[in-house]
Amino acid sequence: MNRLSKPISLARFALAPLALSIGLAQANEGMWMPQQLPQIAKDLKATGLAIDPASLSKLTEFPMGAIISLGGCTASFVSPQGLVVTNHHCAYGSIQYNSTPVRDLLKKGFLAQSLEEELPAAPGSRVYVTEAVRDVSAQILDAKTTALKGKVRSDAIEANQKKLVAECEQDKGYRCTVSRFYGGLVFQLIKQLEIRDVRLVHAPADMVGRFGGETDNWVWPRHTGDYSFYRAYVGPDGKPADYNLANKPYAPKFHLKLASEPLKEGDFVMVTGYPGGTDRHRLPTEVDFNFGWEAPELIRIFGEALELIKQETAGRREAEIKLAGLVQGYGNSFKNMQGQQESYTGSDILARKTAAFHELKAWVNGDAKRSAQYGASIAEIERLLAERQSVEKRELLLNFSNPLLLTTARSLYQQAQQNLKPDAERRPGFQQRDALRRRQGLEALERRYDEQTDMRLASHFLAQYLALPADQLNATLLKTLGVSAGMDEVAVKARLGALYAGSKLGDKAERLAWLGRSVDEFKASSDPFIAAAVALYEDDEARDARNKELGGHIQQAYAGVMKALIAFKASRGQAVYPDANGTLRVSFGKVAGRAQGTIDGTSWSAFTTLRGIPAKHTGKGDFDAPAQQLAAIKARQFDKYRAPELDSVPVNFLATLDTTGGNSGSPVLNRKAELVGLLFDGTLDAVISDWDFNPKTTRSICLDARYMLWQMKVVDKADKLLKELNAL
Amino acid sequence: MNRLSKPISLARFALAPLALSIGLAQANEGMWMPQQLPQIAKDLKATGLAIDPASLSKLTEFPMGAIISLGGCTASFVSPQGLVVTNHHCAYGSIQYNSTPVRDLLKKGFLAQSLEEELPAAPGSRVYVTEAVRDVSAQILDAKTTALKGKVRSDAIEANQKKLVAECEQDKGYRCTVSRFYGGLVFQLIKQLEIRDVRLVHAPADMVGRFGGETDNWVWPRHTGDYSFYRAYVGPDGKPADYNLANKPYAPKFHLKLASEPLKEGDFVMVTGYPGGTDRHRLPTEVDFNFGWEAPELIRIFGEALELIKQETAGRREAEIKLAGLVQGYGNSFKNMQGQQESYTGSDILARKTAAFHELKAWVNGDAKRSAQYGASIAEIERLLAERQSVEKRELLLNFSNPLLLTTARSLYQQAQQNLKPDAERRPGFQQRDALRRRQGLEALERRYDEQTDMRLASHFLAQYLALPADQLNATLLKTLGVSAGMDEVAVKARLGALYAGSKLGDKAERLAWLGRSVDEFKASSDPFIAAAVALYEDDEARDARNKELGGHIQQAYAGVMKALIAFKASRGQAVYPDANGTLRVSFGKVAGRAQGTIDGTSWSAFTTLRGIPAKHTGKGDFDAPAQQLAAIKARQFDKYRAPELDSVPVNFLATLDTTGGNSGSPVLNRKAELVGLLFDGTLDAVISDWDFNPKTTRSICLDARYMLWQMKVVDKADKLLKELNAL
Repeated sequence: MNRLSKPISLARFALAPLALSIGLAQANEGMWMPQQLPQIAKDLKATGLAIDPASLSKLTEFPMGAIISLGGCTASFVSPQGLVVTNHHCAYGSIQYNSTPVRDLLKKGFLAQSLEEELPAAPGSRVYVTEAVRDVSAQILDAKTTALKGKVRSDAIEANQKKLVAECEQDKGYRCTVSRFYGGLVFQLIKQLEIRDVRLVHAPADMVGRFGGETDNWVWPRHTGDYSFYRAYVGPDGKPADYNLANKPYAPKFHLKLASEPLKEGDFVMVTGYPGGTDRHRLPTEVDFNFGWEAPELIRIFGEALELIKQETAGRREAEIKLAGLVQGYGNSFKNMQGQQESYTGSDILARKTAAFHELKAWVNGDAKRSAQYGASIAEIERLLAERQSVEKRELLLNFSNPLLLTTARSLYQQAQQNLKPDAERRPGFQQRDALRRRQGLEALERRYDEQTDMRLASHFLAQYLALPADQLNATLLKTLGVSAGMDEVAVKARLGALYAGSKLGDKAERLAWLGRSVDEFKASSDPFIAAAVALYEDDEARDARNKELGGHIQQAYAGVMKALIAFKASRGQAVYPDANGTLRVSFGKVAGRAQGTIDGTSWSAFTTLRGIPAKHTGKGDFDAPAQQLAAIKARQFDKYRAPELDSVPVNFLATLDTTGGNSGSPVLNRKAELVGLLFDGTLDAVISDWDFNPKTTRSICLDARYMLWQMKVVDKADKLLKELNAL
Repeated sequence: MNRLSKPISLARFALAPLALSIGLAQANEGMWMPQQLPQIAKDLKATGLAIDPASLSKLTEFPMGAIISLGGCTASFVSPQGLVVTNHHCAYGSIQYNSTPVRDLLKKGFLAQSLEEELPAAPGSRVYVTEAVRDVSAQILDAKTTALKGKVRSDAIEANQKKLVAECEQDKGYRCTVSRFYGGLVFQLIKQLEIRDVRLVHAPADMVGRFGGETDNWVWPRHTGDYSFYRAYVGPDGKPADYNLANKPYAPKFHLKLASEPLKEGDFVMVTGYPGGTDRHRLPTEVDFNFGWEAPELIRIFGEALELIKQETAGRREAEIKLAGLVQGYGNSFKNMQGQQESYTGSDILARKTAAFHELKAWVNGDAKRSAQYGASIAEIERLLAERQSVEKRELLLNFSNPLLLTTARSLYQQAQQNLKPDAERRPGFQQRDALRRRQGLEALERRYDEQTDMRLASHFLAQYLALPADQLNATLLKTLGVSAGMDEVAVKARLGALYAGSKLGDKAERLAWLGRSVDEFKASSDPFIAAAVALYEDDEARDARNKELGGHIQQAYAGVMKALIAFKASRGQAVYPDANGTLRVSFGKVAGRAQGTIDGTSWSAFTTLRGIPAKHTGKGDFDAPAQQLAAIKARQFDKYRAPELDSVPVNFLATLDTTGGNSGSPVLNRKAELVGLLFDGTLDAVISDWDFNPKTTRSICLDARYMLWQMKVVDKADKLLKELNAL
């Protein structure tokens, strides 16, 4: 989960992330909205927080003012000169972007010796500083909207969101978002300063930052130096600006300071960050669908894709570098889902979810007024979800069957179509405000596109799609791509090959040129992918409309069910915290090992140490620690970073923190809100916590800041940076 | 260490096991003589003992009266009908002895359904019940003896020992031994009832009793069901008797009862048993010699021997069964010594031992009187030890170079020579009292002798011996065997082959016939091994005399050094406990995991559970659990043996108990002296504790009695036996 810097994009519905809260907060469970913290002040104090809990609810003050989002990952300011620390795997795309076979930063790491040497991060890289959050539920679900159903309801919600966002973004340099909580009952308008000149300052060698690789991913004991440094730059006027050599480091109002006391087992810790999403309050039918069909299918797909990428990039280091990000993302999801599946199998999760839902139904049906208020939603929701599941069963493979350039062409044509309307009426993602991001995305494609691998993946999964029952297949798609039901991979590849061969979209200038072109120009094009995008447009729109129709109904019913549940829980005096949705949250807990380890008869200690690195080192694959590091460990050059009780430098630690994907890079703070580490992973048998939190087994894996500082000081000699961190 | 049922016999000197006490008892350190327990009553109580510590010092009362020695292993009476429980690996020889390729008890286990079905244990099997212990130091080191030096001193000590033993054994059915403590300052006469009709009652399947095999030996986490049952039989008159169908079960005065309360982490436990030997108080030069030369050399030899045995027995199950005991012994020593070596390397053990010895010297030299009393011994000892080490360097390989039948022939000829003297003057081991044991040894050879393997091992190591500098080689031996310096293995094998081919000693009747023959008959024999034994006799005697000469000097000096040390420690108010020497001892401690596990970032839990068995099961090699057992685990058929806090049946547990080889099979008793398990192993990084006790890392591995009872009840349906144990 935490290793997911960007969630794998699946064709979920626009209104899909609905969540239903049926859980009750347990010890250390909960990714709390900052504004909820005063409510749980007693718990925070009891667990050991030494500062005023109320200060955590103020987004524009310390420490929350220092916490930033990278969009998919979390980070924090750690110096007055806009220095940002996050995970190595969160900066991975930027390290990869700046790497070539000749200058292999991925492998060797990178250390800018001066501001001038800092490298531009991957196109589209951002630093978001949340500055204001406002409840806008009444504006989104106004009287007019609540009277609507289906697609028009979806459209109205979308229009209201766009309006609020547009108003908010009158303030230049800000990016505004409307986020939904509790399945769409509550909406918040979030205003973030959007810094768009982000530069890479320092990354350790791959086999420090990624030591253990996929082998150790989600695994304890862990010895990963998962840290990297960015710097945020702004224009000479102090406002966000595009990359420019004249820009200067951004001066954040607040930055985190390194811990003034050594971290120990049992200590209070908290994590502030942007968890992407949890499914803890899904309805039983959704749980069953996920674990019974969707996840097993995705595990199969990711496994096959990883194998194909390995085959196609073998011996081609350039292609390997280009695909590294995808491999990391797929590999991570692959292992995550396998872990979830393993925990789910033989568990009583579905039974408990079903019982809880029955309990809710009984409560609703036990009273005429409640029955009148919520009965219809409850009756409706399962039918609607079943309908959505049948669509997903038919279309899941399509997400893996498209050549990347075809997806690009469709997006470019959609832009041309949207450009026909006034900006305010354009679909989200295709407005003026999205222009730069879209352009940078088109540029960055260059660095992650390998035709040979792309063609192999598309052919492989398209052939699988074509093996589904012929009457379920999308006739327009088949006709457009020139393929037919039952066609095998070799034949599919031959057909797709012609498209690839004839397209010029692989060329950056050509791709960018299409950004400004009209619908008619698209229609006149003979580029195979552009022509296909045009041919598919009507069907794509129809499917979008179908999804919005279904999404509107689901939102309405789901929100009704959730309203019932909140009322039910309130009747028992129980509070409800919302599922994670990419907004700023606070989790708290303690540094703690685990009584039951991975192997019967073993436990997990709270800390790993430098001792584990030479012990794991094999000199190859995922365990190839740098020679200088091994030498320093052997010589016990611990500097001031030795923890006496461990007789070594702590490397990673476990904590009872409730986190998920998106929390990656989050600073781990001690009782005084000082930086003690970076959150970067969870453990495999605890990943099921996205669906079902178990306080006994769930642990987050954190980088100990002492390991980072030790590596920077003793091995990488990053003295200048350490000085900026006030760590010398 | 604990897996050593019989220590590998090396040609150490008759007076070799000298020990020097420089240690101070730490928490849970110490294998206490029962008579010392009242001195440490406070510690015992504080740790949790709930019975009167004084009762533990009474050998003929409960519980000590129930603890017995098997000679190399410990065991205990567990029913009024002489039922004995010990480790599977302690009864291994007897299971092996009764196994054939057709009736493979090793593999399938054995359960006698009635007394009649109980099988005779391997020849020479004994149950020893210690009934009296008396200090005889003044008789052994009488005025006349203390005035002697060298060989005559050794001879006098030997003569005094024999005299005391002979007097003691006037009481028929008893075996008496003189044991030395504190390097020969203190001698005790130990009187043990010797039961010689021992029968095999029950052994679980090999892959229960030996689950994990050599792979898991000395390893935690562990899942070994290391238990087996014997029964002691006596003649119709209740006195020890040879095996006879008319014999009846022995009725012990005391037997252990199963625990009345479930064992938990942190509980007090103690172990009563016969630890074979420790080297905790060796002088620095001995530590250096062991870890610097002898142990590495033995590790090499054992490793090669194991590989050769594997090669030679491949595809021959009968030979494999015959060699199983040797493989287990060698394998165990191999792993043990490797573990010790690993802990020793990079440690400060030698530095600490050296500093402690310097401290002693300084204390002695700091006072004229002390200097006069101990100075000579201290000056002498290192020179003497160096001399012994140089002999060992020359002769170590000879212990592995002899055909087993040549060793047998030499022993037979020695017997003929000794028979020329009155019984009381014969060498220990060759007196009337040893006759039966010797005969049974000659018979049992049948079951452990495989000519092909024996010839391969002897040729291999003899060729290595012949590669030593020619002037160091034993000329008589070379001449007798017809080999010469520098000869390679193939040539050596050809020479030895002729001896093997011509000898009839492989035949049991022929071997036994030689027991009664005279020196002249030996001299007249043309059997190649008998002839070789005669030819080697004079040289063997000369080497024996040389060893006794050196041994006498060493005993004298070493005892002087030790006397100095005891005085030194006493001057500081510190007590000294003696190194283990195969006599009855008591260790106590607690059930406890370990903060630092084998892998950085993990700890050891106190218990393993049934969960670990299917997790380790691979269906082959050392991890091939029986199908019925796996099925019972899968079905969670825990019966009454489930520990709620573990949600499973406990299998093995760790305890802070100070034990070593010989302790194997020792009952583990709770605070009420009730049986909670059997000690069977230590952990690899703690085996160094034989030389240097570390309370932080040293743990003993014990079988939890609940696992034994669960396996017997649920899987093996041993209801009759469980009833006898009062466990139904």
